[in-house]
Amino acid sequence: MTLPLNPAMAATFPPPVMEARRWIQGLSFPADRPLLNLSQAAPVEPPPPGLREALAEAALSDPQAHLYGPVLGMPALREELASQWSRAYGGRIEAAQVAITQGCNQAFCAIMATLAAAGDEVILPTPWYFNHKMWLDMQGVTAVPLPTGPTLRPDAERAAALVTPRTRAIVLVTPNNPGGVEYPAATLAAFRDLARSRGLALILDETYRDFDSRTGAPHPLFADPEWDGVLVHLYSFSKAYRLTGHRVGAVVASAARLAQVEKFLDTVAICPSQLGQIGALWGMRNLAHWVAGERDEILARRTAMVGGFAALPGWTLLGCGAYFAYVTHPFAEASDRLAQRLVHEAGVLMLPGTMFRPEGADEGGRELRIAFANVDTARIADLFARLAQVAD
Amino acid sequence: MTLPLNPAMAATFPPPVMEARRWIQGLSFPADRPLLNLSQAAPVEPPPPGLREALAEAALSDPQAHLYGPVLGMPALREELASQWSRAYGGRIEAAQVAITQGCNQAFCAIMATLAAAGDEVILPTPWYFNHKMWLDMQGVTAVPLPTGPTLRPDAERAAALVTPRTRAIVLVTPNNPGGVEYPAATLAAFRDLARSRGLALILDETYRDFDSRTGAPHPLFADPEWDGVLVHLYSFSKAYRLTGHRVGAVVASAARLAQVEKFLDTVAICPSQLGQIGALWGMRNLAHWVAGERDEILARRTAMVGGFAALPGWTLLGCGAYFAYVTHPFAEASDRLAQRLVHEAGVLMLPGTMFRPEGADEGGRELRIAFANVDTARIADLFARLAQVAD
Repeated sequence: MTLPLNPAMAATFPPPVMEARRWIQGLSFPADRPLLNLSQAAPVEPPPPGLREALAEAALSDPQAHLYGPVLGMPALREELASQWSRAYGGRIEAAQVAITQGCNQAFCAIMATLAAAGDEVILPTPWYFNHKMWLDMQGVTAVPLPTGPTLRPDAERAAALVTPRTRAIVLVTPNNPGGVEYPAATLAAFRDLARSRGLALILDETYRDFDSRTGAPHPLFADPEWDGVLVHLYSFSKAYRLTGHRVGAVVASAARLAQVEKFLDTVAICPSQLGQIGALWGMRNLAHWVAGERDEILARRTAMVGGFAALPGWTLLGCGAYFAYVTHPFAEASDRLAQRLVHEAGVLMLPGTMFRPEGADEGGRELRIAFANVDTARIADLFARLAQVAD
Repeated sequence: MTLPLNPAMAATFPPPVMEARRWIQGLSFPADRPLLNLSQAAPVEPPPPGLREALAEAALSDPQAHLYGPVLGMPALREELASQWSRAYGGRIEAAQVAITQGCNQAFCAIMATLAAAGDEVILPTPWYFNHKMWLDMQGVTAVPLPTGPTLRPDAERAAALVTPRTRAIVLVTPNNPGGVEYPAATLAAFRDLARSRGLALILDETYRDFDSRTGAPHPLFADPEWDGVLVHLYSFSKAYRLTGHRVGAVVASAARLAQVEKFLDTVAICPSQLGQIGALWGMRNLAHWVAGERDEILARRTAMVGGFAALPGWTLLGCGAYFAYVTHPFAEASDRLAQRLVHEAGVLMLPGTMFRPEGADEGGRELRIAFANVDTARIADLFARLAQVAD
């Protein structure tokens, strides 16, 4: 007799990044043309030495680094984020409105678990971030796609037409994963107004905020004194400080909402990793200048991506920013087959648009996501040389 | 307009440990009679120096310690656990049947998400572990209480009578939290047979296995070559190696089941903390002798608890083992009020039985859980001196 299987879990697709890893499993690549892995939005270098030393020191000398902490995170880290965000966004965010999570994916799951139950609906612009779709699927919540067209920019009026009595939230990721697009402030304000007028939560995932090409606050939402009646902000410490292996993220919302989030986090996490939080706090206090340099470098790579695609016949760059370029390719085959062919013929791993679209959506077959932020400009030049040689 | 709130989340009770922390917030205790905090099953000392040094070394010198790892955990740790468990339980467990999680609570949530959807039922012996109940509540899964009576030992025949077409799993915690009882091998075999005959999963949470008073394998379930058709085993590295702040646990199940678990973990965690896994692996490879000493000490404390209650009029020790004593008290008031009075009158914090029982269950009002494992025998003597002085 087979054990029971939750049908919603059975219907959830397997992790795309792990599937992509299987495409390269057992393969070897020549030394003069190593694999260009552009599949995952992840730093490939460890954090700078000062942060590593702070972690080592805490591991040796701070007993609390090894013991349980509060469910909603380390008070000093919640305060630091509240204070820095208040300045950066020109608003007022209290420590009690900040919770720390085991990574930003968990922040999304936790907040969504407080908002939506099986049978409810959540609006996601497409192409979407696959882990958002996976969580909704496994919870029996319907992900309602909001097509963004070739600009990759969502439109609030178009979203308004999708709201039903079962809608609970709208999720925006800016700078966008997978699209690389930085949503204009006016777009975000329009979505905020829509969400407020319909009693929905607006979930704003700003995982890639540290690499936004714009200066100053990217949106005015926190400047609204009533922001916590509609807005939920998500953040990840993984990208700015290269802490992916420590799993530290954050959710910013009303204190009342965080009392619900606390139930979820107590049950799924108990507390975030203490060393991860120590690293994130050290980073926030000491690495602002270093992160600014990282941003400059990523913006230079972005420029190289934009230039490269402008010169590459047949390809179209739909969006490019923060960690990602999102493109259409000129080949006849669907992108999921093309992505595997590119591994073999070009030594390049990137994710097909099919992983970011509802099943059967036509656009996905023409699209690819390129996580370029961790590839220097020399290798970006190499990427374009390789892509130019791919046979039809 | 108020934001939506998932009714299942609203109906989930808040974290009991956090509630208990609020009872002591702002209080001060005299230096000659400090607070005895017996509320949480958590080490209060950091890991031994060798493990701390291994973590510090990895933080400084191992770039992988800071970067994403595989969703299901570090291969070497999965192999080590498979190998040590195969020996300890006299069975065959493959690395592919082991997944590492961000703590054992997450292991429970992950496996349960693959088994049960809203409207399904899961059988939990009472008193139960509150985080199990919380997860089921927030998922809309019905926790079906299986009363264990004054022995705190569940009975498979009684469980059989509770199975319905919606039942998906039976959860057993041994040594038990909160009851402290070590379930006999025959009890576990009977539950395994029941689960197998009815097509249910048997979830065996062995978080406290390292402190079982019995020698040898505590049960024969892994010796069954077909174990993975019915059994799911959960483990925590937190207690043995004092790694609570690192959040490392494990789930052992069929490889096919772990492919479903991988979807959940990718979405909620991406990967477990790398440093936590490095610490757990170092502990498994180097601390067997040290853990045996810890176990001896905890068994001595257990003896002190048994002796103390035997001499304390009016109190009854229902169960005592691993980290916990579970008792009935002689006072007229309900245990949730008594627990708060004990903070003020005796400087002792323990959790009331009401936190481990269905709402309104009469037994809870007479019971208390005492997490004694981290209190040395001198302080255990002090505990009994204090309890003896509590006024009616």
